[in-house]
Amino acid sequence: MPNELRGACLFGQSGGPTAVINASACGVFQTALALPQITRVLGAAHGIRGVLDDVIYDIGQEDPIDLELLMNTPSSELGSCRYKLKDPDVDDTDFRRILEIFKKYDVRYFFYNGGNDSMDTCEKVSRYMARAGWECRIMGVPKTIDNDLWGTDHCPGFGSAAKYIATSCMEVSKDSSVYNIGQATVIEIMGRHAGWLAGASVLASAAGSGPDLIYLPEVDFDMEKFLADVERVYKEKGNVLVAVSEGIHDADGKLIAEAEVSATDGFGHAQLGGLAVRLAQAIKARLHIKVRGIELSLLQRCGAHLASKTDLEEAYLAGKAAVEAAVAGETGKMVAFERIDDNNSYSVRVKLIPLDSVANLESKVPVDWIVPEGNYVKEEFINYALPLIQGEPERPVINSLPRYSRLKKIHA
Amino acid sequence: MPNELRGACLFGQSGGPTAVINASACGVFQTALALPQITRVLGAAHGIRGVLDDVIYDIGQEDPIDLELLMNTPSSELGSCRYKLKDPDVDDTDFRRILEIFKKYDVRYFFYNGGNDSMDTCEKVSRYMARAGWECRIMGVPKTIDNDLWGTDHCPGFGSAAKYIATSCMEVSKDSSVYNIGQATVIEIMGRHAGWLAGASVLASAAGSGPDLIYLPEVDFDMEKFLADVERVYKEKGNVLVAVSEGIHDADGKLIAEAEVSATDGFGHAQLGGLAVRLAQAIKARLHIKVRGIELSLLQRCGAHLASKTDLEEAYLAGKAAVEAAVAGETGKMVAFERIDDNNSYSVRVKLIPLDSVANLESKVPVDWIVPEGNYVKEEFINYALPLIQGEPERPVINSLPRYSRLKKIHA
Repeated sequence: MPNELRGACLFGQSGGPTAVINASACGVFQTALALPQITRVLGAAHGIRGVLDDVIYDIGQEDPIDLELLMNTPSSELGSCRYKLKDPDVDDTDFRRILEIFKKYDVRYFFYNGGNDSMDTCEKVSRYMARAGWECRIMGVPKTIDNDLWGTDHCPGFGSAAKYIATSCMEVSKDSSVYNIGQATVIEIMGRHAGWLAGASVLASAAGSGPDLIYLPEVDFDMEKFLADVERVYKEKGNVLVAVSEGIHDADGKLIAEAEVSATDGFGHAQLGGLAVRLAQAIKARLHIKVRGIELSLLQRCGAHLASKTDLEEAYLAGKAAVEAAVAGETGKMVAFERIDDNNSYSVRVKLIPLDSVANLESKVPVDWIVPEGNYVKEEFINYALPLIQGEPERPVINSLPRYSRLKKIHA
Repeated sequence: MPNELRGACLFGQSGGPTAVINASACGVFQTALALPQITRVLGAAHGIRGVLDDVIYDIGQEDPIDLELLMNTPSSELGSCRYKLKDPDVDDTDFRRILEIFKKYDVRYFFYNGGNDSMDTCEKVSRYMARAGWECRIMGVPKTIDNDLWGTDHCPGFGSAAKYIATSCMEVSKDSSVYNIGQATVIEIMGRHAGWLAGASVLASAAGSGPDLIYLPEVDFDMEKFLADVERVYKEKGNVLVAVSEGIHDADGKLIAEAEVSATDGFGHAQLGGLAVRLAQAIKARLHIKVRGIELSLLQRCGAHLASKTDLEEAYLAGKAAVEAAVAGETGKMVAFERIDDNNSYSVRVKLIPLDSVANLESKVPVDWIVPEGNYVKEEFINYALPLIQGEPERPVINSLPRYSRLKKIHA
């Protein structure tokens, strides 16, 4: 039985925000506030930056209603950062400062909510504290819309972004096929290295109106093949809707979004409009049809009004499980989900995996879930993603607009 | 008492789609199907194009469930067009064809759902039929997200687009202010000549997280003033969110989206990314800060999942009222809404206005609803727009994705 460890808990958010990242914060805060071992519940402004800068909020002074409203508030309410810690063996300046702050507030529990880079931060802090002899239990709480975190079936944030993408693709599919003159529409979806989000657009097609063609970064992109695909569908249907991941690249690994392509194939120079507009222009130059490029941009990662209830509850559970495991003696682990495949009914169980087995690894869409032509995803993807977007959470509104949490953010 | 007119009714959709245009179709179809004077309910594919091409659907053969689901299906389910009829006094070719089709199907009621141009079509058809001696009652059903239709307090389609814009601005405001390094974000909103949609972003700010600066086409846009505004807000807050109408223009009337600006002020050449990206780049070149341009594009006009119940019900009512008025003897009119200002509780009454008083006129945001600096809108705008976004309709879903209408579209 582990020794009981009493002290403050400190929570931070890191990396790109999601629609449900604050649900994990809610899970951490509500669970920690109720546990006698945790003497004080603290939140770091802008993740590890707030620790380094000593900008620490006293969560115990927040109104419980606003803590509850974190469930429905998108983006990182405490602020986020993209600060990468050095290796403590090379330069321990930051770590000495973190230790100083941990001692100042008697931080014995540290929870860090983020993706790959954040688990790396978590792992380094964990390693340093062990070496420095400061007893502190450190747990990673997973988060990323990209769904590329290693060691978990899926990641909180993905389900809600996938639902936003699928719903938006359904709507755009309806809108972009309305005229008697056809149109090619290209939707650009986030995901630099993994195609989980772009793949989620297939859920729209499965529901009756979605993309005809889907391109993921797991497969090399060939412009000639792409234009031939578009032409074929356009000739068949009179309209074509394409979903592409921002990370698609050619066989040499060069991003299509950054490719210098000659003017003859429809690309201009020094364009700023991003991949969707570039591909739309390439189609226009070749096929001489009406085109439109749409970038889902930040909208897809902050679309809390379309959050998946499943995702929201799992995000809360991830925070809660991290606190409970730490208080029970665990440290140096990340909360992960294992899918229980039980007669087609979806459920998950929480597991804990060592931080050093997660940090900096990427989970990608299995190549055998992509059709051989590289322009669509298979049934396996639908079976994987559909359970993750299920359920409509309650959405508190005032005057039919969201009522977000308003934390007081009182300095500790 | 008007003579009773028996015969078929024909309905068509025209112009840009909206989230609720099919609710007007539902209002027309359900009302017409129940009236004994109307012998047959028909729908034209792609508006007046379907009349000219004789592509006419028999709505009486549709499943009532799918007619009901039109309430929740975005975009123009029958298809739309942007076909402008000539003046019948100059060239009556199209009108002779329309008369031929009206005679073929015994069309005695014609309902046309659209914006300014569509009311012009409606007015011309009405004028021609009267002259040709074909007894036919013709009514316009208003529709446009732009809200620029003359003679009505507001227009079906606007409230839902406004709600989508306000909600999305709230979410983007949360997402774009999350890092400890500041960012300028520019959101581009539809509206070529009228700023109603861009103005609706103020509802986000009124709800606690929205744009700091709003620019409408009703006021000349000055790049130097704009950059100074952005700099001031950024220095105050560390972040800045800007909402702009796609139609903003300089004092000479030249669209900023099409301006050729020298490279020194941050614009490149032959850019394709649209206004938001151009303005973001101009900010970056001047202030050397992180920027992002977001174009709401088609998403804002087909966002049925965020439809306003008020808007949806009024869209239905517009269709229903058009049919009822025509059967009661009216013709050559457009359905319009008059707001009843009764102790701050919102309600509307239907009125009918002559088509020739509407066609080709534009309703714009009153200039005294815009602040003197031209970079925000006043309380009057909020009071006007807020009632129009109210209420969350039931949204039929299957697997948490929308269940849209699936019309059989059987040719008449």
